[in-house]
Amino acid sequence: MTNRFSFTLLAQDGHARRGEITTPRGTIRTPAFMPVGTAGTVKAMYPGQVRDLGSDIILGNVYHLMLRPGAERVAKLGGLHEFALWPWPILTDSGGFQVMSLSSLRKLDEDGVTFRSHIDGSTHRLTPERSVEIQHLLDSDIQMQLDECIRLPADRREIERAMELSLRWAERSAKAFGDQPGKAMFGIVQGGDQPDLRIRSAERLAAMDLKGYAVGGLAVGEPQAVMLETLAETLPSLPAGKPRYLMGVGTPDDIVQSVARGIDMFDCVMPTRAGRHGLAFTRHGRINLRNARHAEDSSPLDETSDCPASRDYSRAYLHHLVRADEALGGMLLTWNNLAYYQSLMAGIRSAIEAGSYADFVAETKAGWERGEAARKAA
Amino acid sequence: MTNRFSFTLLAQDGHARRGEITTPRGTIRTPAFMPVGTAGTVKAMYPGQVRDLGSDIILGNVYHLMLRPGAERVAKLGGLHEFALWPWPILTDSGGFQVMSLSSLRKLDEDGVTFRSHIDGSTHRLTPERSVEIQHLLDSDIQMQLDECIRLPADRREIERAMELSLRWAERSAKAFGDQPGKAMFGIVQGGDQPDLRIRSAERLAAMDLKGYAVGGLAVGEPQAVMLETLAETLPSLPAGKPRYLMGVGTPDDIVQSVARGIDMFDCVMPTRAGRHGLAFTRHGRINLRNARHAEDSSPLDETSDCPASRDYSRAYLHHLVRADEALGGMLLTWNNLAYYQSLMAGIRSAIEAGSYADFVAETKAGWERGEAARKAA
Repeated sequence: MTNRFSFTLLAQDGHARRGEITTPRGTIRTPAFMPVGTAGTVKAMYPGQVRDLGSDIILGNVYHLMLRPGAERVAKLGGLHEFALWPWPILTDSGGFQVMSLSSLRKLDEDGVTFRSHIDGSTHRLTPERSVEIQHLLDSDIQMQLDECIRLPADRREIERAMELSLRWAERSAKAFGDQPGKAMFGIVQGGDQPDLRIRSAERLAAMDLKGYAVGGLAVGEPQAVMLETLAETLPSLPAGKPRYLMGVGTPDDIVQSVARGIDMFDCVMPTRAGRHGLAFTRHGRINLRNARHAEDSSPLDETSDCPASRDYSRAYLHHLVRADEALGGMLLTWNNLAYYQSLMAGIRSAIEAGSYADFVAETKAGWERGEAARKAA
Repeated sequence: MTNRFSFTLLAQDGHARRGEITTPRGTIRTPAFMPVGTAGTVKAMYPGQVRDLGSDIILGNVYHLMLRPGAERVAKLGGLHEFALWPWPILTDSGGFQVMSLSSLRKLDEDGVTFRSHIDGSTHRLTPERSVEIQHLLDSDIQMQLDECIRLPADRREIERAMELSLRWAERSAKAFGDQPGKAMFGIVQGGDQPDLRIRSAERLAAMDLKGYAVGGLAVGEPQAVMLETLAETLPSLPAGKPRYLMGVGTPDDIVQSVARGIDMFDCVMPTRAGRHGLAFTRHGRINLRNARHAEDSSPLDETSDCPASRDYSRAYLHHLVRADEALGGMLLTWNNLAYYQSLMAGIRSAIEAGSYADFVAETKAGWERGEAARKAA
């Protein structure tokens, strides 16, 4: 096992990249999907299950963990890996995104942001330095700079102000992070839907020679085409030898399209959240188990899957569990969804290695589009 | 595998009995604890986990299943075993108890009971014959007669009326059940806290030569001593060669005490429901994980357990999950609790075989009473 953090490009197919991040806690095969373990748990999953699906890394949220159970407490208990029984790599976000989306009465200044907890209304302060300190207390392997993530559409002047602030915070974050062997601090490209601002942000971050780069502030409501165009315009300004992480994205289609433009890492609550709300992702597309047409369907979600949740339980049973609001419904659909996401990532990686990524995308999309019709015709 | 339903007494120690129920779907080692799978799922558990803990049989509720997804629908899908991925024995109750405790606007007459669903207010009718029909549609291995279960304290005349009605319903249930090879219809002793009524009920049921007998209407709020006295007075009137099932009981202490009086089977929502509310059952007694004193306790619930939920996760993490209302908290505590209940039953069975039941009870109770003090001194 290495004691260094490094990234190796193993293969390329067009702009799509097959790589490997090595860390002392394990190797991350890219393109990678990182299940979201918000408060130290990938909701409704045992950690061993998440791992067995092929997850090399999970994500933890600074915002949630700093409020409960608290970063100092997690540190006292041996860090997030030991606390959450996940000895493999963990990426933590900086807390900035949730401060904007979840907390109330937030007040942003040059130095940082003050906000009220959505849990108990208590007041908290997050600065670039405090975010790095929290991520260090959690013992996170890949740490993110604090940034200001604004909603789109927004005024260009406002986008530029937030992007410039995020750049200054990137410098402070990198300085606070210092030299942590085996770990990484990633910068975050901002700039909204303004190509020149995105490029300026990427170039200035690239000049800081960070260990990896994220693209933030996308998939916040804009059309997919805008997101993909922004990626196409931005990514050439990031160094090819560093991993590229598209934050909070996305649907299976978002992922295959973003990989085609050169993204290496993803995280999204979609497979877990949708699973708790009765929605299954499969190679035949999305299936809403709440729908009455599944009530007497004895077929499983995917009889060819290795995942028991996808293969062994009938749609009729899943429909019943979802309708009856039974915990097992969310457990099984979350499991199915993460299994599908991770099998999609495995397929993506193989296709890039084989130089057949375009074919893979076409076949995968055809499967989604044939959908249930294909299953019924079979 | 047998194609008959039978009960064999393997050992006795005082009144405590070690036995075996054989059915075409598998053997049930008694004394047995049956996890409650209300709506076709033992809440927050995968069926394979329930089995792996040593559960030979689970319980399903006619009331819940007839309302959703409906008995005819379950039958169409291959029966409850196939629907819920539980190919081993299932006992179903008759629906009577939940009609009394959950539904509204119930109207009881000699023929049966009409009630409104707690889910959507729709009107339903349950008679002894319909309850048997539903249990047959579910393909239940051990079916229960419809009875009238009243709350205590109650007027003696009211207790007697309900008990006599339940006896008439037992006869109708047995007739409706007919001859189902490999399956059993159990009668239910009623009679409240009136010893002579209990004895009359037991004797009249015994005369019907049913395949097993339950004691109902206990653990509904009366002191444990009243329950145990009722058992001591009632059980001698039931045939020794038939299994005896104490419905809806109970705490670990209720179970060891009732086994000492000759009970063979138990079911209770306590381990599953308590697990979802942050309470753990262990050999050191009960542990309320919600309590702040666990917030920084890195020790597991029971480092000697075979169950990952009990052995691998820290109390601090469980505390965090419970406080944050995370699904994994209920999943782990339910798992721990069922593991403890089933290990208790295994201990009970071994002790009866070894003729050391009294010692086992004394040691088990001492463990609960030493509780956390013992752990801290160690």
